[in-house]
Amino acid sequence: MPKPTFLSPSPGEDELIDWLREQPVTANLLGDDAALLSPSGELAVTMDTQVSGIHFRTDLSPELIARRLLAVNLSDLAAMGARPTRTFLALSTSEPFDHLSFFRAFLQECARYECQLAGGDLSRNRNTTAVLTLLGELPSGGHWLRRRAAEPGHDLWLGGTLGESALGVELLRRGAGIDAEGRVRLPKSLELTAAQEPAARQAIRRQVLPRPQLELGQWLAVHSPYGAIDVSDGLAKDLHRLCRESGTGATVDLQSIPTSDTFHSLCRSLSLSWRELVLAGGEDYVLLFTLPRGTEPPPKLAARRIGFLHENPKLQLRTEEQVEELPPLGWDHITS
Amino acid sequence: MPKPTFLSPSPGEDELIDWLREQPVTANLLGDDAALLSPSGELAVTMDTQVSGIHFRTDLSPELIARRLLAVNLSDLAAMGARPTRTFLALSTSEPFDHLSFFRAFLQECARYECQLAGGDLSRNRNTTAVLTLLGELPSGGHWLRRRAAEPGHDLWLGGTLGESALGVELLRRGAGIDAEGRVRLPKSLELTAAQEPAARQAIRRQVLPRPQLELGQWLAVHSPYGAIDVSDGLAKDLHRLCRESGTGATVDLQSIPTSDTFHSLCRSLSLSWRELVLAGGEDYVLLFTLPRGTEPPPKLAARRIGFLHENPKLQLRTEEQVEELPPLGWDHITS
Repeated sequence: MPKPTFLSPSPGEDELIDWLREQPVTANLLGDDAALLSPSGELAVTMDTQVSGIHFRTDLSPELIARRLLAVNLSDLAAMGARPTRTFLALSTSEPFDHLSFFRAFLQECARYECQLAGGDLSRNRNTTAVLTLLGELPSGGHWLRRRAAEPGHDLWLGGTLGESALGVELLRRGAGIDAEGRVRLPKSLELTAAQEPAARQAIRRQVLPRPQLELGQWLAVHSPYGAIDVSDGLAKDLHRLCRESGTGATVDLQSIPTSDTFHSLCRSLSLSWRELVLAGGEDYVLLFTLPRGTEPPPKLAARRIGFLHENPKLQLRTEEQVEELPPLGWDHITS
Repeated sequence: MPKPTFLSPSPGEDELIDWLREQPVTANLLGDDAALLSPSGELAVTMDTQVSGIHFRTDLSPELIARRLLAVNLSDLAAMGARPTRTFLALSTSEPFDHLSFFRAFLQECARYECQLAGGDLSRNRNTTAVLTLLGELPSGGHWLRRRAAEPGHDLWLGGTLGESALGVELLRRGAGIDAEGRVRLPKSLELTAAQEPAARQAIRRQVLPRPQLELGQWLAVHSPYGAIDVSDGLAKDLHRLCRESGTGATVDLQSIPTSDTFHSLCRSLSLSWRELVLAGGEDYVLLFTLPRGTEPPPKLAARRIGFLHENPKLQLRTEEQVEELPPLGWDHITS
């Protein structure tokens, strides 16, 4: 695909990254969920930001900010097939901020994922802003997962359900809350049925505390090399990225995209388009990956086949009625 | 020195870092300007933040934000004796922001210092916030510089003048400006003499665009291992850190601390305490290091001997009149 040689004054995220990749000083290091460092590519490095009021609500507790920050970075490493080793944290906070609660929760999560806090930086800011740099290594016998390794003929797989996280955003916007221990509060004004409540709680936890798919990523690393990306900005946008890197197209079967129990019922009650949440909601933090036809991850990893890749570079969505074009809907970190 | 086992609800930066260093999951990786990664310690990693309105004025151009961000991070690597190799950038911006100008300047500076942009993250924020993670390697035949390597009997050296950067802050606060190309504008209201103007311009450039002392750091790495730290939060505070890590005390001769031409004259005109700027002004980004008596850096590196280390853990300041205690004055990134 031809790359732009001119950058517009207000570029979107993907346009800016395309431009950066053309510059000699970036040296072909951009374009995956993490950078692989030479000489032997034994180290993956990823970096992700959480800003109060942008990535999470301003009333989120320091404990949950810490846990979410680590989780979204771990998801990038999962998409490379890596296991985490070291974290570097830049935390700039508005006052007052409970540093002790933040760091206790952060260190506890680091211990859980067997990585260490190795350095960082503290400062003040208007909006609390937490940036993590995360280093990872390959599991023994593994290969890095790369977007470019996806090939025509591969099946397209998803590591989990979509749309639930975006539903969680909407529930929080309408008055739901979550405390430092992860307990969800659902206001009566939401008018949920008893059957919907557990799913609503789960959607909020999924939004605030995504579960990085490290086990799936490492299984893929050992059984591949095939293509993978984590769905952070919406299926449609991230599938476009995967296909662009690998020079492929894809056809997705809308009905096979997994969703959580009572997801459709909750969408109806809240007057939300389930299709929009699933395709463009974002922050799902599940792996989107490819495998040769006939290869399947173990059932306990709960992945689902949702389509296939082809040489024709179009992205298509197959619904019950028709086959239509799938545009790169989703989140742009500069313009959204 | 005993470490606290209890952390106050609103800890200062050093108190928080002490507490973190006691936690098993930080594994003795904190305490220098950069973390050295095992197995063979061949990689130094540092991370530093620049927040609009905190670290630089809100009207600073994207070009200068980019250059300053890289410079302050390079200074941390210089204090380890390293040369830079890879950068990772997390940039979250308020609107409107000229990403293209930022990245052009950033990549130009990367090329100048022979390092690459290898990854990062873009998002929005209320205050433009730029975080850099910088990786570095040792020059051939070098040893890492560590704070703990300072020893009683060593001479204490400074890589350049102090106080000028804090003077620059004050000039900017009183109406001076600097454009994207680094040209300084001095308003008439400052009432500077013709002899003072060049020094005032230089102070502002020094504040906005510090020069990382990579050459000095690498000379030290090859000729040491001795103690080093970069003076970012003020001589008094950073000397306390150096001495604490190495279990030493120090005596500094106030009159031997180098200052720039007409620095004293400018301080008088602006009614500023030169002593306060020199000891606690901060953002000097020169190396503070130790060498065995009789060893001197080459004259072209323009370093100056300013005192010596001793076993008595006190920090003392020798003035023309007396010897007094030197408290850890300076910048605290949480409470200041």
